[in-house]
Amino acid sequence: MEGLEAIRWTGDSVEYIDQRLLPHDEVIRRAATVDEIESAIKTLAVRGAPCIGIFGAYGVALLRRILSDDDAFRAAAIRVRNARPTAVNLTWAVDRVMAAQDMVAEAQAIHAEQRVIDARIAEAGAHLIGRDASVLTHCNTGPIATAGGGTALGVIIAAARAGKRPHVFVDETRPLLQGARLTYYELNRAGIDATLIVDGAAAVTMQRKAVDLVIVGADRIACNGDTANKVGTYSLAIAAAHHGIPFYVAAPRSTFDFTLRSGADIPIEERPADEVTAYDGTRVAPEGARAFNPAFDVTPGHLITAFITEYGIVRSPYVESIPDLQLRPNLMSIA
Amino acid sequence: MEGLEAIRWTGDSVEYIDQRLLPHDEVIRRAATVDEIESAIKTLAVRGAPCIGIFGAYGVALLRRILSDDDAFRAAAIRVRNARPTAVNLTWAVDRVMAAQDMVAEAQAIHAEQRVIDARIAEAGAHLIGRDASVLTHCNTGPIATAGGGTALGVIIAAARAGKRPHVFVDETRPLLQGARLTYYELNRAGIDATLIVDGAAAVTMQRKAVDLVIVGADRIACNGDTANKVGTYSLAIAAAHHGIPFYVAAPRSTFDFTLRSGADIPIEERPADEVTAYDGTRVAPEGARAFNPAFDVTPGHLITAFITEYGIVRSPYVESIPDLQLRPNLMSIA
Repeated sequence: MEGLEAIRWTGDSVEYIDQRLLPHDEVIRRAATVDEIESAIKTLAVRGAPCIGIFGAYGVALLRRILSDDDAFRAAAIRVRNARPTAVNLTWAVDRVMAAQDMVAEAQAIHAEQRVIDARIAEAGAHLIGRDASVLTHCNTGPIATAGGGTALGVIIAAARAGKRPHVFVDETRPLLQGARLTYYELNRAGIDATLIVDGAAAVTMQRKAVDLVIVGADRIACNGDTANKVGTYSLAIAAAHHGIPFYVAAPRSTFDFTLRSGADIPIEERPADEVTAYDGTRVAPEGARAFNPAFDVTPGHLITAFITEYGIVRSPYVESIPDLQLRPNLMSIA
Repeated sequence: MEGLEAIRWTGDSVEYIDQRLLPHDEVIRRAATVDEIESAIKTLAVRGAPCIGIFGAYGVALLRRILSDDDAFRAAAIRVRNARPTAVNLTWAVDRVMAAQDMVAEAQAIHAEQRVIDARIAEAGAHLIGRDASVLTHCNTGPIATAGGGTALGVIIAAARAGKRPHVFVDETRPLLQGARLTYYELNRAGIDATLIVDGAAAVTMQRKAVDLVIVGADRIACNGDTANKVGTYSLAIAAAHHGIPFYVAAPRSTFDFTLRSGADIPIEERPADEVTAYDGTRVAPEGARAFNPAFDVTPGHLITAFITEYGIVRSPYVESIPDLQLRPNLMSIA
């Protein structure tokens, strides 16, 4: 996303776009303390699995600079590492920075790698999108979700740049409306034809609008292909299978959790009820209404046609192809 | 719903609760002209398939009183009849009133019948709900949706009154949030345990919360069981089938359209984009965003376990059991 950088390292802070205010206001904030770093992640001002990884990496590198006491630093780093539980990218990036000699350089390397990885994912996936294809997507997986070129949305943008004229149906993605607020906005900026739908309209859109494929991102992927992603993804995968529509997940290797055999062990974050009972301060449900508000769901691997990664298309049997990914050389050492 | 009447005939107007303002404000309005009657239906101030049928019936009876010119009356009645296209109850009720000698008496008969019919539906369906059952529902099908006891929600309320302690997961039902605003409110009033979810969370709720059955209402049902209902119903039916969870549709005979062989011929109302691009009046998507906003979708009959009607449970093969319904005697002549 030219001209819109999700995250920027300044030397004494980490700057970020407050994604809660998009698309109406483009507000850049700076985090310079552990409270500010943790809070930016917890409140979803910074969101998107790769993006919170990069933000966490810079955050921990910054904390190392400002906290000379090792125990205080370690405690602060753990707070950042645990700010959200589901996306594995955050713990992966924090652990990588913690193990490095030069933490700032390592965070910058992770950020630079993300741009290369996103470009490879986009390249690997773009050929799956035919000319004038109708694509359906969920949540936000664009440049602001990765601080690079995006995953699922990066694939769509690459197809558009290759002249394929995709049309995109965008799930609004309740409760926090990342589709309506962020994905529609990013598609707009990229000049791509888009139509917004409510999440419940995805199945009828597949039935009546000749959707050719679904592409989504991921927050954590187990070795059998079970994929945690924004709540609503599982519903979409079931509907895609019902209509015989290919269902792709675009994600970097850092989103795969090679320690997990299946999705049963992925921790699912439950968020406050008021995300469901109100919007933007406007209460909708009756006072005191209870809600079940899991931020993510787990789509079983057998509902996923293939994964689009920086190493190319990963197909089933996933129990073989996913662990194989772990053995591949680091992209930066190839490049 | 004791103490809360959705519609009331006053002799020189039709009073109604403005359902757009619930649950925060219980505002009673009166419609006394064709503009007011048509607008109450079009803007969804009055909604719910049986409820708009009854409102339209009283409305046309009122118009007959105030318009002495036959052509003017007929033109006005047609405007009411066509105010919304999908629910067959509206045309059915208007046609019935138009054919009657005493139009007011006929509208009152339709209203009185609805109460009897809803009670029968509730009775027929309540035994499908086990003790401590977990039930998932969509949109609003309670007393304010029928101006009687409700259809799907009437079944749940009847089960609760029989001491079965159901727990209800309520889809918020975007775009207009009838689940969050109306169903949660009605369950609250009835003292029934309820949990709100976003529509996209229905599949993960089925997967993780041991949902025993799904019950929804309907706006129009074809002879093969294909059912038009609030957008999102089709998605829910696919997810229920995927999880092996029974999926019931509760509806009176007046919702069956015996002239239609399949759902392919049901007209689906598309509503303004701003219902999707804004959330309860707050703009969400970028200025000028486009949306596909079908108010309904059509669930194929083969995904529906059974219909709960005032004549009992209607099971497949629907091409036989549904046309049979048309031959049954009027409930009021039995009663």
